[in-house]
Amino acid sequence: MFSVTVRDHIMIAHSFRGEVFGPAQRLHGATYVVDATFRRAELDADNIVVDIGLAGQRLAAVLGELNYRNLDELPEFAGVNTSTEMLARTIADRLADLVHAGSLGEGARALAGITVTLHESHAAWASYERTL
Amino acid sequence: MFSVTVRDHIMIAHSFRGEVFGPAQRLHGATYVVDATFRRAELDADNIVVDIGLAGQRLAAVLGELNYRNLDELPEFAGVNTSTEMLARTIADRLADLVHAGSLGEGARALAGITVTLHESHAAWASYERTL
Amino acid sequence: MFSVTVRDHIMIAHSFRGEVFGPAQRLHGATYVVDATFRRAELDADNIVVDIGLAGQRLAAVLGELNYRNLDELPEFAGVNTSTEMLARTIADRLADLVHAGSLGEGARALAGITVTLHESHAAWASYERTL
Amino acid sequence: MFSVTVRDHIMIAHSFRGEVFGPAQRLHGATYVVDATFRRAELDADNIVVDIGLAGQRLAAVLGELNYRNLDELPEFAGVNTSTEMLARTIADRLADLVHAGSLGEGARALAGITVTLHESHAAWASYERTL
Amino acid sequence: MFSVTVRDHIMIAHSFRGEVFGPAQRLHGATYVVDATFRRAELDADNIVVDIGLAGQRLAAVLGELNYRNLDELPEFAGVNTSTEMLARTIADRLADLVHAGSLGEGARALAGITVTLHESHAAWASYERTL
Amino acid sequence: MFSVTVRDHIMIAHSFRGEVFGPAQRLHGATYVVDATFRRAELDADNIVVDIGLAGQRLAAVLGELNYRNLDELPEFAGVNTSTEMLARTIADRLADLVHAGSLGEGARALAGITVTLHESHAAWASYERTL
Repeated sequence: MFSVTVRDHIMIAHSFRGEVFGPAQRLHGATYVVDATFRRAELDADNIVVDIGLAGQRLAAVLGELNYRNLDELPEFAGVNTSTEMLARTIADRLADLVHAGSLGEGARALAGITVTLHESHAAWASYERTL
Repeated sequence: MFSVTVRDHIMIAHSFRGEVFGPAQRLHGATYVVDATFRRAELDADNIVVDIGLAGQRLAAVLGELNYRNLDELPEFAGVNTSTEMLARTIADRLADLVHAGSLGEGARALAGITVTLHESHAAWASYERTL
Repeated sequence: MFSVTVRDHIMIAHSFRGEVFGPAQRLHGATYVVDATFRRAELDADNIVVDIGLAGQRLAAVLGELNYRNLDELPEFAGVNTSTEMLARTIADRLADLVHAGSLGEGARALAGITVTLHESHAAWASYERTL
Repeated sequence: MFSVTVRDHIMIAHSFRGEVFGPAQRLHGATYVVDATFRRAELDADNIVVDIGLAGQRLAAVLGELNYRNLDELPEFAGVNTSTEMLARTIADRLADLVHAGSLGEGARALAGITVTLHESHAAWASYERTL
Repeated sequence: MFSVTVRDHIMIAHSFRGEVFGPAQRLHGATYVVDATFRRAELDADNIVVDIGLAGQRLAAVLGELNYRNLDELPEFAGVNTSTEMLARTIADRLADLVHAGSLGEGARALAGITVTLHESHAAWASYERTL
Repeated sequence: MFSVTVRDHIMIAHSFRGEVFGPAQRLHGATYVVDATFRRAELDADNIVVDIGLAGQRLAAVLGELNYRNLDELPEFAGVNTSTEMLARTIADRLADLVHAGSLGEGARALAGITVTLHESHAAWASYERTL
């Protein structure tokens, strides 16, 4: 199995609901360093998993919808705890939609899966892994 | 599949027995930067894999039993090569025991697995992955 | 010249005023990975720059006043752009006050200077360096 | 499952053929920071996955064949796009050959698999994972 | 003293002349992860050292002239060993020219200095520091 | 001012004397990831600060005297707290001696200074900076 990963980042504000979150129930924020990994069983005719330039552009586009935002105010997250885990899934699912729509190139339709990892600090991170 | 990882570290002394270890047969030591990863198929009602604060505290407790110790003198490791690989398993198994005992919260009983990675330098690390 | 550095982090929300900040004028947030460096010309009788345990605790205390906060709502920052640069100075100055108050130990009064670096992502950081 | 990883690096020149590569069709180069991971279900009698010293030496030998080279001029890569993905497979396959030949020690014949990751910058990397 | 640093990277081919370079006399290449640091005694009215967005764009422009190139073929480097140290100075000097030309904003004329660091691997890097 | 840095590491055991060290008074150990930085005002005729291959070899030689050792048993450290700070100075001074002896090449006599940084974990490090 092959994989290619590209890294980017976002800076967002949000708050959590639930005692488990302690002081993170207050409005605060995070930089998420985001790693998007594309997996594939065999390389294409160009010997690549995916057009890495296109992959970086699409990741930037998906992150652009969240970047410099207060997630508490986005309708799509109304009543939702925007945990690191949940955001990893959101970003992975949006990338998957773009793959299915052909936005990462026709060849990308042969991708087997996507993993998205969000680093919230030097000492904690979360991932979501899915098939395509 | 979702995962959450927390990072901490320990500083220990030990020695190895066996020619394969070369100069590491002498009493020496290591800083292990320890990454504990908790995996889970679905998020809980709070949209998280595990209470990350609790995960960090339990990891610190498990590491506290080893930190600033000469592992050669711990009865539990008598006659055992405390390799990076073996310590990764020890820490993963102790975290698994805590999960089963409910120490990471009732919700953590739905965890699917644990991976522990010990970085022994900027250029070498070892992991142990297990189910729960 | 000797130095010792300890690392910790905070997660905050804030917004900026001024066209130069572009989309960062919206309420957003950041994880700052914070490195506090203590400098000293000669080591003390214990062969150290500063009690590193105490240094870590005091850094955590200074960061605790900011962590999980919306900086826009803190009276001390009213009307102030809480840029990465400015926060580096704030944290350095607060650590300097603690050094002068003896909170890092009597020996720490011999410290020559402090540098605080805030990493706002994997690709950008800011520092403030001062004497004591 | 256990794993052990060792890190090294190479510095090479090459060019790509195909519009998907854009400006990388020109002769350019890369530093690849290379992580070789060896996986194994159970530890050996010494409590290790593989002799890490031997693993590092064999990785260095495999990389030595590529280091400080213009890959466009190596007969083995004639007409081949030496993408990061493809080089990860090449290095993994050559390590696998060495394992099968006994060059990583007799015990290494019990290895279950190898993964090789090539970091081409701080923001992009590729992996190839195979069984043994 | 304040500073702000932005990170980017280039991928180039080149060769060296001189026995001291050993196998690096052959045509090979490198990824340079480039950190550009801007220093300033006092913050401007916006509480910043420099417009970080503009700094990143100008760094990208300077790097764009070198990226995906064989440096041996660039007239400006004819007969010159394009060592990591020398490239750090070249990039710093070109950024300094842009500062002096007002391309980093009028406020940037108050910058005190620039340091450029090029990481050529996980285990080696070089810097050039200059005043403005 | 130019600088070049090379990275290596050692794994040692030791203990400290003095209440300030708390549990680190017990025999324990550390991995030190060691960065040796060589500074110089102007580049030599080859456009370099120092022969980086030679610098790496000399650093390895200096570290080899400490690696896989219990520092408490080395006569040179009898009655001395082998703190991270103190070890940074020891390594810097030994490198300086080698520079003065011509072991880093005749050209290295023009070096202006050396800084040695020892990373003892992902969250703490110490440096010693000296002139030559």
